[in-house]
Amino acid sequence: MKDFPKTQRSRVRRLPKRGKYDRRTIYQILDRGFVCHVGFVADAGQPFVIPTLYARTGDAVLIHGSALSRMLKNLSRGIDVCLNVTLVDGLVLARSAFNHSMNYRSAVVFGRGKPVADRAAKLAALRRISENVLAGRFADSRPPTAKELDLTTVIRIDIEEASAKIRAGDPVDDRRDYDAGFWAGVLPFESGFGEPEPAADLGSGIKLPDYLQKFRTG
Amino acid sequence: MKDFPKTQRSRVRRLPKRGKYDRRTIYQILDRGFVCHVGFVADAGQPFVIPTLYARTGDAVLIHGSALSRMLKNLSRGIDVCLNVTLVDGLVLARSAFNHSMNYRSAVVFGRGKPVADRAAKLAALRRISENVLAGRFADSRPPTAKELDLTTVIRIDIEEASAKIRAGDPVDDRRDYDAGFWAGVLPFESGFGEPEPAADLGSGIKLPDYLQKFRTG
Repeated sequence: MKDFPKTQRSRVRRLPKRGKYDRRTIYQILDRGFVCHVGFVADAGQPFVIPTLYARTGDAVLIHGSALSRMLKNLSRGIDVCLNVTLVDGLVLARSAFNHSMNYRSAVVFGRGKPVADRAAKLAALRRISENVLAGRFADSRPPTAKELDLTTVIRIDIEEASAKIRAGDPVDDRRDYDAGFWAGVLPFESGFGEPEPAADLGSGIKLPDYLQKFRTG
Repeated sequence: MKDFPKTQRSRVRRLPKRGKYDRRTIYQILDRGFVCHVGFVADAGQPFVIPTLYARTGDAVLIHGSALSRMLKNLSRGIDVCLNVTLVDGLVLARSAFNHSMNYRSAVVFGRGKPVADRAAKLAALRRISENVLAGRFADSRPPTAKELDLTTVIRIDIEEASAKIRAGDPVDDRRDYDAGFWAGVLPFESGFGEPEPAADLGSGIKLPDYLQKFRTG
């Protein structure tokens, strides 16, 4: 796959040596997460950062929400967007406070939003987002009506530029700090879905569907 | 505690009915997380969103990083910042695709950065961030030297305005969807630290410190 171009805006991250611009790396991160942080500018220069669900499709990212959403109304105007997906993998505990770090995988995407207006395309986008968040669920729910689709805004952000930052592995300490007796290593940060909790008003006799069985812990 | 003022910029979130402006709620969220997403504008209007560690101290948020960081250089100039902390609690699986949602706690902070220049104040800020990320660690590592402090930029963002959004509990479905037989409920999203992993080059005889014992799973 072709790399994304390297311009000033994708070099704003703090440790240039950790920068990766290849699509495969960036897309692996995007496809692993399900909550992104969307940054945009509104109200005469004020930055905003809002979390939302998303999915990647080809060289674009899809987000959605209420047609009343101020963020989506802003993005519909085609303004610049910066979208960040960060997966935290652990704390890096070095011998020196200075060399402490975090293991993580982070992707940043630059582009501009445009509304997906066509109902069929909107439905496909919503299915795509749903599948990225929880595969199997969309087909096991009542599909959106035409009215519900009209109440929903879908924004497609074509990826103009993107980069990833990854830090993995052990701490890197100065030689002189090795003999001070401090414990060093990684404290992993783990996340995932837990035991499904049926709604209080779930009808008796409705079994846990197959795609949720793998999250059972009991 | 006094509530934060409600202005246009803290109302940009998509579901106004979920907005909370009381300090207690907002600070509970800030104090629970350790990674925030910082939004700012640079390069003639381009928004950026960068993840970083942080800590709250009083009515301010502290972040830090390399003195070479472009983000921190930008923030040092006193530009507007939007800082977001989002804790994902679960997926809300409704009978209808339309009523699907996410349980989460999210805090958004607006303010402007200013560099913490004084070495003693910088050291105190670094300790505070470290304690927020992993209590007990800072005292159990080699403290920063004067040179290391000079290589580190600390930014203090006084909170001018803030709000929180919280969604919790079961899905809310339309009555007509109750009899279709779809499973409904919440799929919890869980996260936390796992079993500490000693560095490959950790000296033998260095025991796991007390503040890490609680993360042992074996």
